[in-house]
Amino acid sequence: MGGPEVDRLVALLARLPGLGPRSARRAALHLLKNRGSLLEPLTAALERTAEAVKPCPVCGNLDTVEPCGICSEARRDRSTICVVEEVDDLWALERAGIFGGLYHVLGGALSALDGVGPEDLGIAGLVARASDGAVEEVILATNATVDGQTTAHYVTDRLEGCGVRVSRLAFGVPMGGELDYLDEGTLGAALKARRAV
Amino acid sequence: MGGPEVDRLVALLARLPGLGPRSARRAALHLLKNRGSLLEPLTAALERTAEAVKPCPVCGNLDTVEPCGICSEARRDRSTICVVEEVDDLWALERAGIFGGLYHVLGGALSALDGVGPEDLGIAGLVARASDGAVEEVILATNATVDGQTTAHYVTDRLEGCGVRVSRLAFGVPMGGELDYLDEGTLGAALKARRAV
Repeated sequence: MGGPEVDRLVALLARLPGLGPRSARRAALHLLKNRGSLLEPLTAALERTAEAVKPCPVCGNLDTVEPCGICSEARRDRSTICVVEEVDDLWALERAGIFGGLYHVLGGALSALDGVGPEDLGIAGLVARASDGAVEEVILATNATVDGQTTAHYVTDRLEGCGVRVSRLAFGVPMGGELDYLDEGTLGAALKARRAV
Repeated sequence: MGGPEVDRLVALLARLPGLGPRSARRAALHLLKNRGSLLEPLTAALERTAEAVKPCPVCGNLDTVEPCGICSEARRDRSTICVVEEVDDLWALERAGIFGGLYHVLGGALSALDGVGPEDLGIAGLVARASDGAVEEVILATNATVDGQTTAHYVTDRLEGCGVRVSRLAFGVPMGGELDYLDEGTLGAALKARRAV
């Protein structure tokens, strides 16, 4: 319906996370029904974003300035680097406003299944940063998945000899989490890491 | 995060049906991470669609040709017009492949709450089409909502004197629907419209 132009638009929209084939069709129609207020501004915003936003050569964050806003912020603690898999994770931590150090985006996790090896991730860059003398601690904040854990182990090995402390996020019961709904792995980790009150 | 360009892109993406603020941010990042394969093709597809796709002057469908592919298809039954609220509804009926006549898109439903009056909908155009002598039946396929029903009643009144039969879609239990999960309105309508076996 609507000709090949609409079909192509729907196919592309369906590749966005959160949209399936059906919701992509609804989104395409919504765009067509709101040309001036949505379709045209969105096209312009996509163009401007593609032009302006680049990965930071230091940490891999996406920003309009080089190095990125975080790397160039004076009041950041330059002795601590938090290692994350993706830019999404960095943004999640920043939104939480709980970390004042620098970041390093690996660009994914090691995965035998998906054929992602160490050379595909920004590990060499991390080792170089960790060896520059100013860094004291590297916090591994990869996902608590098999691939994320494997990556954390591998990065720990690679950081040996850099003279930095390597730590990782704690595992446990999420705030507001009900034990009843948690998997055994989380419960086991929370029990093992229990603290005296 | 990512500068004002990304914030603006996220704000626009969040206005698509199916995407909220959080998934819009994920979609924006996904676009930035897949520039060549997604961001740029999507920008181009939006531009081409905005340029090529126009509402059909006869029925209100969206298409790249005028009149639209359905209005100009020779094998369509020109004696029947199916009236729908939105282009989405027309496309849903076409996907089902169950109707061989023509359509008329009203562009919404009467709504006191949203301030949509008869003059905001394509009702005058429908009356003109229904009066041209070739049309024998108008099928009302507005939504089974309060606004859709009100619109159907109003359109029925306006079509009086045009010399056409006016019908509407049947109400009842949806195929595969379990009675247990249906609301009382649907059950009541299905009972009232029961048929001899």
